[in-house]
Amino acid sequence: MTQPLDDLVGSIVTPDAEAAAAARDHQLQLTKPPGSLGRIEDLGVQLAAIAGAAIPPMPEPAAVVVFAADHGVHAEGVSPWPQEVTAQMVANFCAGGAAINVIGSLAGAEVTVVNAGVAEPLADHPRLINEPVRHGTANLRVEAAMSRDEAGQALLLGARTALRLISSGAACLITGDMGIANTTASAALIAALTGGDPSAVTGRGSGIDDATLALKQVVIEDALRRVPLDALRSDPVGLVSELGGLEIAALGGFCLAGAAVRVPVIVDGVIALAGALVAHALQPLVTGYLIAGHRSVEPGARAALDHLGLDPLLDLGLRLGEGSGAALAYPLVRAAAALMRDMATFGDAGVTDTDAGR
Amino acid sequence: MTQPLDDLVGSIVTPDAEAAAAARDHQLQLTKPPGSLGRIEDLGVQLAAIAGAAIPPMPEPAAVVVFAADHGVHAEGVSPWPQEVTAQMVANFCAGGAAINVIGSLAGAEVTVVNAGVAEPLADHPRLINEPVRHGTANLRVEAAMSRDEAGQALLLGARTALRLISSGAACLITGDMGIANTTASAALIAALTGGDPSAVTGRGSGIDDATLALKQVVIEDALRRVPLDALRSDPVGLVSELGGLEIAALGGFCLAGAAVRVPVIVDGVIALAGALVAHALQPLVTGYLIAGHRSVEPGARAALDHLGLDPLLDLGLRLGEGSGAALAYPLVRAAAALMRDMATFGDAGVTDTDAGR
Repeated sequence: MTQPLDDLVGSIVTPDAEAAAAARDHQLQLTKPPGSLGRIEDLGVQLAAIAGAAIPPMPEPAAVVVFAADHGVHAEGVSPWPQEVTAQMVANFCAGGAAINVIGSLAGAEVTVVNAGVAEPLADHPRLINEPVRHGTANLRVEAAMSRDEAGQALLLGARTALRLISSGAACLITGDMGIANTTASAALIAALTGGDPSAVTGRGSGIDDATLALKQVVIEDALRRVPLDALRSDPVGLVSELGGLEIAALGGFCLAGAAVRVPVIVDGVIALAGALVAHALQPLVTGYLIAGHRSVEPGARAALDHLGLDPLLDLGLRLGEGSGAALAYPLVRAAAALMRDMATFGDAGVTDTDAGR
Repeated sequence: MTQPLDDLVGSIVTPDAEAAAAARDHQLQLTKPPGSLGRIEDLGVQLAAIAGAAIPPMPEPAAVVVFAADHGVHAEGVSPWPQEVTAQMVANFCAGGAAINVIGSLAGAEVTVVNAGVAEPLADHPRLINEPVRHGTANLRVEAAMSRDEAGQALLLGARTALRLISSGAACLITGDMGIANTTASAALIAALTGGDPSAVTGRGSGIDDATLALKQVVIEDALRRVPLDALRSDPVGLVSELGGLEIAALGGFCLAGAAVRVPVIVDGVIALAGALVAHALQPLVTGYLIAGHRSVEPGARAALDHLGLDPLLDLGLRLGEGSGAALAYPLVRAAAALMRDMATFGDAGVTDTDAGR
């Protein structure tokens, strides 16, 4: 690893167990039966541990970042969508017309787009961080998707973006992605990092037919046969360079940077989870700072969630990406913090307490 | 039934299938793979059918109503919480310190409290509709919880409240409840209306121990043995008068009135679902206007959801009531409508479309 990446990984600490315990105690004072808010209470405790404060700060404003890149493996025919849709959708994100813009706007979360490696050059736009590491990856079926150096650069691009947004005031990060054929790279990485069967973690992405799904599985199996998997399991940067995804690497760095500065990161679907797995391979402590927004219908998402030990907030049959599922979950994260801050205690409200359920 | 209730039930029509079909067509034009927003797309179609418009109006502002009442069955020892907690919590709702106040405030949904039948007289408050039908029910284990006339009055109180809020601008209704021991009445009604085994639909409510749970089941079995169930299945008002819940009856009327004026109603947990079952027994068409906010951990909630054919949006281990789970789901309902209204189409955004997944 490079020194900056090493420093980033080394700066992540265990979330604050004392703050978590104090948060649990505080919740017992609030005017509700203990535990009656279920996962929302757990989430409040996690936010407390992340912030190191019994009553966590409000995770607002949130910032959504859509990392965009293209994939050389598109040439294998793994997606029915032409590659130029990546750039077209970047324009749509910039213009504010995509699903993530609508969801982000409702939630008060601004959307930033990062060109991590779209195939064609993109015009600058106020909403676009236009710093491509390279113009699309190589075809992971037959060769390394990118160089080791490029993988490191993509990770640092993601980390830099996170830190930039946090220094502008973001108190919660939401992962998004765009990249035609990126479920292929994600499935390859998820199979490699979880040890899952490639065919079990490969899904239909944006909606492919049976023949394309079979081809996609063969492509991923070929890629996994091509690389020295055992050696690469202890070398996440090397693994990313082989199986790629410039936006996936950037998402990994984004997760790591959020964790490093103790800001919660809401993780979206299968692409974001592949990035989170890369982050986890570099630094297992990162998971304490991650909140799984939803359970995507992509089978790789389930394998990644299990491997990371994350229990998603939503399960709505989503498979869009862009950060849509994570942004839809964001109001739950806000609510978890607000309940800790703003609910009356039994004492304050003059409500009789009992020992029930303790 | 009384004439006003008859009129209410008779005024409910089937949601608009043509608008639903037009909404599905519109969704295929939006810049995303078809179906990739899963349940959120279904929800958008439901909102279109409710409103009778391909692109539904925004369901905002929403109004949360917490119907509060006391239960004579509390005397059996089915809850560890003293009965005065109902009135204390009403004061907490009025003061803004309860969970539903915090969640409602985040979602921009105002909270109104309705005294449907709290045991003790309550002081007036700007947030309180203070129109108790009676001061708590009788003990449903040994006698009818209320008279038939009172059951009708409680249903109409709920309906009147819905119409009052809608005429003040509410475009979405959120059901809430408060009443110590009300999971007992709910479980009795759910068993009666779904034909479920009383022990299978009886849960721990606010958190009772094994001995109290066993007692609660016996109480419910006694109540169900006491009443002529077969005759009452075709007489929902009679059934409610026997097994009670003034707030449950009011919730039933609230659901019916929302449906009658074609406003979506987000239903909370087991208490609200018991009310929805009463509404459904009076008019099966009501379910087209209902959105299940969440799957409560109470076993009766599952039985009621199955009976109503509703698929809840959230599953977060909640069991608080107050409308908390429904209000937590409200941002998803807003998002479903906003996506229909504000997303760019393939044509507008210059994004290449494919036939994938159609």
